[in-house]
Amino acid sequence: MPVNYRPAAPEELLPVPGVSLGTAAAGIKNWSRDDLLLVRLAPGARAAGVFTQNRFCAAPVIVCREHLARGGPIGALVVNAGNANAGTGDRGIADARATCAAAAELVGCKPEAVLPFSTGVIMEPLPLDKILRALPVCREALAETGWYAAVRSIMTTDTVPKGASRQISVGGAPVTVTGIAKGAGMIAPNMATLLGFVATDAPIAAGLLGALTAEVAQESFNRITIDGDTSTNDSFVVMSSGQAPLPPVERRDDPRLPPIRAAIEAVASDLALAIVRDGEGATKLISITVEGGRNEDECNRVARAIAHSPLVKTAFFASDPNLGRIVCAIGNAGIADLDPRRVSFWLDDVGVVASGGRAPSYREEDGQRVMAKPEIAVRVALGRGSARASVFTCDLSHDYVRINADYRS
Amino acid sequence: MPVNYRPAAPEELLPVPGVSLGTAAAGIKNWSRDDLLLVRLAPGARAAGVFTQNRFCAAPVIVCREHLARGGPIGALVVNAGNANAGTGDRGIADARATCAAAAELVGCKPEAVLPFSTGVIMEPLPLDKILRALPVCREALAETGWYAAVRSIMTTDTVPKGASRQISVGGAPVTVTGIAKGAGMIAPNMATLLGFVATDAPIAAGLLGALTAEVAQESFNRITIDGDTSTNDSFVVMSSGQAPLPPVERRDDPRLPPIRAAIEAVASDLALAIVRDGEGATKLISITVEGGRNEDECNRVARAIAHSPLVKTAFFASDPNLGRIVCAIGNAGIADLDPRRVSFWLDDVGVVASGGRAPSYREEDGQRVMAKPEIAVRVALGRGSARASVFTCDLSHDYVRINADYRS
Repeated sequence: MPVNYRPAAPEELLPVPGVSLGTAAAGIKNWSRDDLLLVRLAPGARAAGVFTQNRFCAAPVIVCREHLARGGPIGALVVNAGNANAGTGDRGIADARATCAAAAELVGCKPEAVLPFSTGVIMEPLPLDKILRALPVCREALAETGWYAAVRSIMTTDTVPKGASRQISVGGAPVTVTGIAKGAGMIAPNMATLLGFVATDAPIAAGLLGALTAEVAQESFNRITIDGDTSTNDSFVVMSSGQAPLPPVERRDDPRLPPIRAAIEAVASDLALAIVRDGEGATKLISITVEGGRNEDECNRVARAIAHSPLVKTAFFASDPNLGRIVCAIGNAGIADLDPRRVSFWLDDVGVVASGGRAPSYREEDGQRVMAKPEIAVRVALGRGSARASVFTCDLSHDYVRINADYRS
Repeated sequence: MPVNYRPAAPEELLPVPGVSLGTAAAGIKNWSRDDLLLVRLAPGARAAGVFTQNRFCAAPVIVCREHLARGGPIGALVVNAGNANAGTGDRGIADARATCAAAAELVGCKPEAVLPFSTGVIMEPLPLDKILRALPVCREALAETGWYAAVRSIMTTDTVPKGASRQISVGGAPVTVTGIAKGAGMIAPNMATLLGFVATDAPIAAGLLGALTAEVAQESFNRITIDGDTSTNDSFVVMSSGQAPLPPVERRDDPRLPPIRAAIEAVASDLALAIVRDGEGATKLISITVEGGRNEDECNRVARAIAHSPLVKTAFFASDPNLGRIVCAIGNAGIADLDPRRVSFWLDDVGVVASGGRAPSYREEDGQRVMAKPEIAVRVALGRGSARASVFTCDLSHDYVRINADYRS
């Protein structure tokens, strides 16, 4: 069960004009659910993406980057669950290209205008024949109301579908932003969800969309971490169908951009937090803010040292204010000249460490009270400067081990 | 149950002339076992140590470093379990000094000739009164045959005592090396065991002992990692009582040094491997060797990325040849220009990945066969150079979470 998360109902995922979605059961694994998604974009639509930093990036990531680098319009996305098409060498690339070619024929665009995505087991060949057989079924199912079916089709170990929408008014015209994401493990610093897709009908020029996507990723998906493992397939894509009745947004200083960007960021942040709330085995949502650093990078390192420590994560799971483990993680973050006597930290409103030692006001029952909550805020002050950074993570529970020890069976 | 480890019997821990040990039940936690250890060294004995790189190092680590930096002889060690005296600020330092002063009076040396060590819960004040009350009991119990009682007294979440001995003949004279260690969690890259103590009666000059200790640590304790958390208290000390009937070893090129060093390294490696075999919840011992790197540092980074990945560790626990998780960890090691097409890896004798893809000869049942073993060797070839590095680690099991979620209760 995710932590404090109510999945959006089908009718809460608002259609985005110019974006239709269709799913099918390709049988990529031994299951009967839909596991293949085709997204068709209106002619002239644009997309931009950010992808995993893992050096073993998956074949579809390589093909996506290549197709996006061409700078042309994007006509379709194809997403399969159950197989990551990663560590599959040249055959994997060929399979991803063949998927694009088939989708292109079905929606009537160039193969290079199709973006492929895969999620699932690594190092097993993609069952291309099953995907090619199921794609026409996806094509038949295409509908602007297809978001809920879409988000269900891309789930793997997710326990709930993750989708979000916002509607705003820009110059009197309605603008919609809807997004879906999947991911519950192998979630870490660089490009943090396996797959995230956000679409808007606002017409955003191609040149702006790339920077916007990177900035939004930085404020949403790149701020979450579950187990410190960056997947081979992480992808986040923002699509602009351009169907809203608005003149194109082409300049950074266009006053219409901030509200559109805010809506996209709100949807992306909803999705990113949903992924942490549904982290494999998660029972708690932990936000970690580190302030008073010399620069953002060192604040980030401390935040992630805390977020990735198995000892800290198990203490959160146990609701045990074993706060020395946080102290230990701070000391391990690799800041060579950190002065422990200037470090303080808080759990919610409870001061725990002051000037490097136990805060004189700290009482075990106060720590216990905070640790028992389903959402906990850790705030660390380094006392070295004015930079800050924050990440969201979850605890490490029995179920994390159970899920990951059983995943393939 | 540790993996393939038979703890040494009491009579297998050989006395080291000039080193006597005594224990007592100080009641530092709510238990009835011995938890305090006093080690007395013969007059003129020397010691050297390496300590945690954690910036929040514990009070006893600070005092140890200070006392060793004076360069004089060492008369005693005091070790308590149950409380780490870490994150305890100035009071922690004062408590460590008071412990040294009390021990010095009991054994007849200067307070600065005493080395203090603590292991246990972080951020709780040391119960100094209990330690001061129990120290005279330790003094009464001092005996050269006290190694087994000693190793039992320093255990925390260890399931077995870890001790080892070697006896060699140097120029016709017997030389003994005996060591003990404790530690089962919070074990990571820099100075990897909570506490390790090795003593020899071989007379090694102070100037040599420091370098020797650092080199031995590098080849033993610094090559193990359980959960990637470097403790605040990690300490490894080598003592030389000088009681063997030998002229002092004073120069690096002394032909007696290599066999003595080999015996010390053998004991330290036994202890380090025992710690991994007894890693919290461990069911498997994994050795990871990375070769073909441009330098040792990048080989180490890849080895530790594999060793620290929770997804890799749970796959080992499940005996699941989910080998894509190793591929993913290699890609996450932060080598920006790694060419996946040159990477290969093996599980024992089974080729899994060749040239960045699944090895053509790989069969699932072969991977399954290796993964089911209690000891597994992972070998990675990066195809970039001739450097190599290796680490030992264990898997991540249900019991790791159980132990760490319950530790304080």
